[in-house]
Amino acid sequence: MLEPGRFITLEGGEGAGKSTQARRLSAALAASGRPVLRTREPGGTPGAERIRNLLLGHGPWDPVAEAMLHFAARREHVAKTIRPFLAAGGWVVCDRFADSTLAYQGAQGLDRSVWARLLDVALGDFAPDVTLLLDMAPEAGMARAAARSGADRYERMSIDFHRRVRDGFLAIAATEPERCAVVDASAGAEDVFGAIAQVLRGRFGVLL
Amino acid sequence: MLEPGRFITLEGGEGAGKSTQARRLSAALAASGRPVLRTREPGGTPGAERIRNLLLGHGPWDPVAEAMLHFAARREHVAKTIRPFLAAGGWVVCDRFADSTLAYQGAQGLDRSVWARLLDVALGDFAPDVTLLLDMAPEAGMARAAARSGADRYERMSIDFHRRVRDGFLAIAATEPERCAVVDASAGAEDVFGAIAQVLRGRFGVLL
Repeated sequence: MLEPGRFITLEGGEGAGKSTQARRLSAALAASGRPVLRTREPGGTPGAERIRNLLLGHGPWDPVAEAMLHFAARREHVAKTIRPFLAAGGWVVCDRFADSTLAYQGAQGLDRSVWARLLDVALGDFAPDVTLLLDMAPEAGMARAAARSGADRYERMSIDFHRRVRDGFLAIAATEPERCAVVDASAGAEDVFGAIAQVLRGRFGVLL
Repeated sequence: MLEPGRFITLEGGEGAGKSTQARRLSAALAASGRPVLRTREPGGTPGAERIRNLLLGHGPWDPVAEAMLHFAARREHVAKTIRPFLAAGGWVVCDRFADSTLAYQGAQGLDRSVWARLLDVALGDFAPDVTLLLDMAPEAGMARAAARSGADRYERMSIDFHRRVRDGFLAIAATEPERCAVVDASAGAEDVFGAIAQVLRGRFGVLL
């Protein structure tokens, strides 16, 4: 019997190493012979990338309008890229997904029920098979992020904001422990990847 | 006591004369000494105009994503332009609003409940004080629209599609007779404006 495709999301604050780990994980899954798509949000289709440019390059947006733009991009991404790839037995590794919208917009005052209603309209029951929450103190994450060039809108926000973002992610993980695994992202990249591999072994019996 | 601001929307198919009547109505209200904002959807704020460009210039979009983009633009428009102008006692004349999303996207298969849920998230109880539905046979409307240059995506669609759009608008007007007034748009512009003025006299006691 064919192994089913799996949908894996990486979540976390700035500088937590999501992109690095998404690359490592995708490479390891591909090396194990699985078809892998590495993608990211907002974006992942031509239309969703255009929405990403609106979100990141313009604004400020009304908070509800901003959440709607995120979910419009997400709907495109899921309908046109993620679902078809999963249906063909592929593994999808996605850098940020719906939890980021709640953690970041929620930290700016978006009502949780607005997020939940948009999630339901956009995705219904569709959800990641596992979400890896790369968790670390925001001070350390911001220091890592600052070492990169081109700080974006979120990276320029206050440390208080980033503490609320972290709390938001941890609250999601506490509410949905069957989906979410919290990974200590303060360690070196090798150790973080070891922890991720252990989660995937436990959840899916995958050896990486 | 200050007269309250009023929110008037014009709806209808291609070639029904919405833009012409929106201009006449705005001019007549302004001539009567009222502060008037004439606007249109999708659009009406810098952000919403950017979303309009995405909607009209790109695609095809997933139907739910497309509806979300329309409501994101509408939320921006209402929050930043329409509500503040009404709160200051102004009159807003808007060429297309939420009914167009239902009539056009519904004619392409969008589920009515998706539209209703997005409407609720975006606008809550906020709605036009009166909606003027400029109704005419789609054959005649398409002939008028074809006489203009630069047919857009909707104008290039089949007559069957435009019949479903008309039926959609008429169904909305039948469901909400207290908000909607159906105006025969097949007459000349002068007669159509006379009918609109009569509706506004009946609803708001305004003499134009």
